[in-house]
Amino acid sequence: MKVAKFGGSSVASATQFRKVADIVSSDVERRIVIVSAPGKRFKDDVKVTDMLIQLAQAAIDGKAYDEVLDEIVKRYAEIANELELPAGEFLAELQDDLRWKISEYRNEPCRLMDAIKASGEDHNARLMALYLQETGLEASYVSPREAGIFVTDEPGNAQILPESYEKLYQLRNRRGVLVIPGFFGYSLDGHIVTFPRGGSDISGSIVAAGVKADVYENFTDVDSIYCVNPSIIANPRKLKEITYREMRELSYSGFSVFHDEALEPVYRAGIPVCVKNTNNPAAPGTWIVAKRNHQEEPIAGIASDTGFCSINISKYLMNREIGFGRRVLQILEDEGISYEHTPSGIDNMSVILRASQLEGEKEKRILDRIQTELEVDEVNVEYGLALIMVVGEGMERTVGMAAKATTALAKANINLEMINQGSSEVSMMFGVKEEVVTNAVRALYEAYFQELPVGNSVK
Amino acid sequence: MKVAKFGGSSVASATQFRKVADIVSSDVERRIVIVSAPGKRFKDDVKVTDMLIQLAQAAIDGKAYDEVLDEIVKRYAEIANELELPAGEFLAELQDDLRWKISEYRNEPCRLMDAIKASGEDHNARLMALYLQETGLEASYVSPREAGIFVTDEPGNAQILPESYEKLYQLRNRRGVLVIPGFFGYSLDGHIVTFPRGGSDISGSIVAAGVKADVYENFTDVDSIYCVNPSIIANPRKLKEITYREMRELSYSGFSVFHDEALEPVYRAGIPVCVKNTNNPAAPGTWIVAKRNHQEEPIAGIASDTGFCSINISKYLMNREIGFGRRVLQILEDEGISYEHTPSGIDNMSVILRASQLEGEKEKRILDRIQTELEVDEVNVEYGLALIMVVGEGMERTVGMAAKATTALAKANINLEMINQGSSEVSMMFGVKEEVVTNAVRALYEAYFQELPVGNSVK
Repeated sequence: MKVAKFGGSSVASATQFRKVADIVSSDVERRIVIVSAPGKRFKDDVKVTDMLIQLAQAAIDGKAYDEVLDEIVKRYAEIANELELPAGEFLAELQDDLRWKISEYRNEPCRLMDAIKASGEDHNARLMALYLQETGLEASYVSPREAGIFVTDEPGNAQILPESYEKLYQLRNRRGVLVIPGFFGYSLDGHIVTFPRGGSDISGSIVAAGVKADVYENFTDVDSIYCVNPSIIANPRKLKEITYREMRELSYSGFSVFHDEALEPVYRAGIPVCVKNTNNPAAPGTWIVAKRNHQEEPIAGIASDTGFCSINISKYLMNREIGFGRRVLQILEDEGISYEHTPSGIDNMSVILRASQLEGEKEKRILDRIQTELEVDEVNVEYGLALIMVVGEGMERTVGMAAKATTALAKANINLEMINQGSSEVSMMFGVKEEVVTNAVRALYEAYFQELPVGNSVK
Repeated sequence: MKVAKFGGSSVASATQFRKVADIVSSDVERRIVIVSAPGKRFKDDVKVTDMLIQLAQAAIDGKAYDEVLDEIVKRYAEIANELELPAGEFLAELQDDLRWKISEYRNEPCRLMDAIKASGEDHNARLMALYLQETGLEASYVSPREAGIFVTDEPGNAQILPESYEKLYQLRNRRGVLVIPGFFGYSLDGHIVTFPRGGSDISGSIVAAGVKADVYENFTDVDSIYCVNPSIIANPRKLKEITYREMRELSYSGFSVFHDEALEPVYRAGIPVCVKNTNNPAAPGTWIVAKRNHQEEPIAGIASDTGFCSINISKYLMNREIGFGRRVLQILEDEGISYEHTPSGIDNMSVILRASQLEGEKEKRILDRIQTELEVDEVNVEYGLALIMVVGEGMERTVGMAAKATTALAKANINLEMINQGSSEVSMMFGVKEEVVTNAVRALYEAYFQELPVGNSVK
C-alpha cells in the first residue's frame, strides 16, 4: 500500500489533475492520495492558499472580500470546467463553506484564518475525488476528521495527537482510492487546525505512518533531490538514495524539498519515502531510507544557509567556572532564543544563532545580561555568518573527509570562521562570511563530487 | 624592577644556591626573589615538600615522625654546610618551628598539613636570605605576612585577596634584595594557607603584579619553552616569544611549564614574564607578553592531553527544543562536573569532559538522568579521547590553517573524532583516539614547524 502526496504545483491545473489521475490509476497500490491546494501554474501565478489568506485577512479587517472570494471560486471552476466535471454543486458548496466560516468565526481571527486557509486543500481534495471518479476509479473524499487526523488546538502549529494513528490504521479497510486534504487536522473539540510550514508533507507523512504504508510517495515538480542547491550549481548530481538523517541535516539548512519536521512520522515508523516528479513519473526519483550503501558515495549533499550571527564571549579562566556555559544558555532561554552551536575555547565561548532572533531590544538586553551577570571580559555579536553543512553517512570515521573540505576551501581562498565536527556522525559544519558562501559551496561541490583522478583533464 | 622566582630544582642544593646568588647579584634590578622549597637534585631524589607531607601525615596519624623530621633538617643542613653558612640557629629554629606547628595544630589536620607544607618554602627563603647576605648582598627574608600576601582561608586552595596588592606595592620602598617564600599566604586570621598546584609560580606572579615589576622572571631548569612536548618530539623548536593567551591555551592542555592560573595576576597587570634557566642564565629564555609579531610564526605551539571522554546524546528534532542544551549542562552542574567542549549537530550534542569526573556511580546517574529527564533517543559515553590544541595568535583569519592540520592528520592516517574551531581566536582543537595522539602531534609538528619548500630534501 502506497500513500501518495501531491504538492501544490502537481495539482495546480486541469493538466496537472490529469497527470495525477494517470499516476494514481497506474498502480493499484496507490490507495491513499493527499493533496495540497492548487499552487502556481506559472512563475507569477498566485497560489490559492495566498488568495485564501487575503480573503481571511479582509474578513478579519472588516473589508470587502467578495472579489477575492470570486477569484478563488474561479480557480476551482477553471479546473473543473477544463476537466468537464459536473461541478456546479461543488462550486456552490465551496462558496457557502467560505462564507459560513467567515460568519462562524467572525470573533475568532486565529480560527478564521486557519479554517479559511485549510479550505484550499479541502476543496482540492473534494475536486480530485470527483475527477478520479469521473475517470472511472473507485475514489472518495475523506475528511481529516473522518480519517482520524486529530491534533492539538494550536492554530497554525498543530501537533498530531498519538491516538490518531490507531484510527488512521482503519483506513486500510476502506475500498478504493481515498483522497485526503493535506495541511490540517481537527482538534478534539472539532475545530480545524493547520500544521506549521510544509503542512501537506506532514499530513502525508502522518497518514503513511498511520496506515503503515509500504512507501510514502511525495510527488513534486523535480525528478529527484539534488546534492546541492541548483541555484548555486547548475545541474548538480541527482541523488538516488539518501537516509532520513542525511535528509534531516540537509533540509534543516537550506534544502527546501521537505520541511524537516515532516519526516518525523515516517522516520519513526520506518517507512521509506520516494520523492518523485508528477511531470515525469517514469523517473526513478530519490528514495529516503533508513540505511543506504555509502561506500561509493560517502557524501550525500552540501547545504548552506545565511542569516546567522555569533555571540562571542571571553573571560580569563572561564573554564574554571562550573556552570558558566549553562548560565549563558539560560539567559538565551529566558529570551526564548534557540541556538545552533556553541564552539568553545579555553577562555572563550561562542553561541551561533539565527540573527533574526536578536532583533529590536533583544541584542542589547542579552549582551547586557551576559556582561553584568557573568562578569565577562568581553562580549560582542558578529553578524553576516553563513553555515555550510557537508552531510553524508560515509563521513563518520573516514580519514581525510575534513582535509578534503578544508583544503578545497583554502584553495578557494576562503577563510573559515568556524568548524564544528564531532557530534553528528553524518555532518560536518563550516562557518564562513555570508559574502563567500556561494564560492565556498562551489569549492566543496567540486571537491566532493567533481574531483577527477590526476591526469584527467576534463572538468 | 624585576621579580625573580626560582623553582624547586633551582634551589635544590648548595650548587644551585650559588647560581641563584650569581644571578641575583648580576642585575641590580632583581630586587625581589621568590623561592620554592628544595626540589630534586637527581632523578630519584625526594623533594623536601614530599618529606614535609610525609611528616604532617605521620603527625596526623599519630605515628612516629622523628626520623623524617631529621631527614628534612638534614637536607637544609647539607646546603648550609656546603655553603659554609653559620646556620646553627637557623637549623634549631627549623626544628622548633616544625614541632611547634605539629603541637599547635594537632586537632586541625588540614591546617597542620598546610602549615607544615609551607615550611619548605619558608625556610628555604630564610636560608637563601642568609646566604645572599654572606655573599655581601644587602638581603633580607620577608614573610608573606609582612609582604602582604593575604588570602582566603581555604587550605590548599588559597585565593589572593584584592587588598594584598596595595600592601605589596610598599615593598618597592624597601632597601636591598627581598627574599619571599612562595606557595603560601596568610588568612586575615593569621593562618598559613597554601595556594593550589603550582603555588610558588602564583606567589611570584602576585608579588610581581603587586610591586608593578617591569618583568617577572621565572627561573626553571630549561633554556626556554618548547613549541611541543619534548617527550614527543626530540629537540623541538624553542620559543622566543609567546602571548599570555597562547600560554594559557597551551598550559591548560599538557604544557607543564606553568600552572595556568599562575599567570592571571601578571596578565591582568600587563607585566611581561621571562622564563629562564638557572643553569644557563645567559640563554635568552622565552618571553610571555601581551602581543607578539606573529607574521613569521603564526603558530606558537601544539599541546595535547589524554584522559577525556565524550557523552554523546541524540534525539530526533533536538534542535527544536529550546532549553535542551541548557538542561544537559544543568545535570552536569548538579553533579559538580566541568566540561571542555560541546560540539553539536542538528539532532546530536556531545559533551567532552575529563573522564576522571565520571568515576564511581556518577556515569550511570548522569546517563540515567539525561535519558529520563530529556527523553533522548540515545545517550552513551565514549572513553579514550585525547585533545590536541594547535595554538597561535596568527591563526585567526588565516586561510589554510585548518587545511594544513587536517591534511597532515589525514596523511598520517589519523581519523578525527572531533574538530572545534571558531570561538577562540588563537586555537584550534582536534579530538583523536588516545592511541594515536603521539602520531597526531608528530604529524602536526611536521606540518607547522618542519615543512620545507618543495625541492628541499633536508628534513
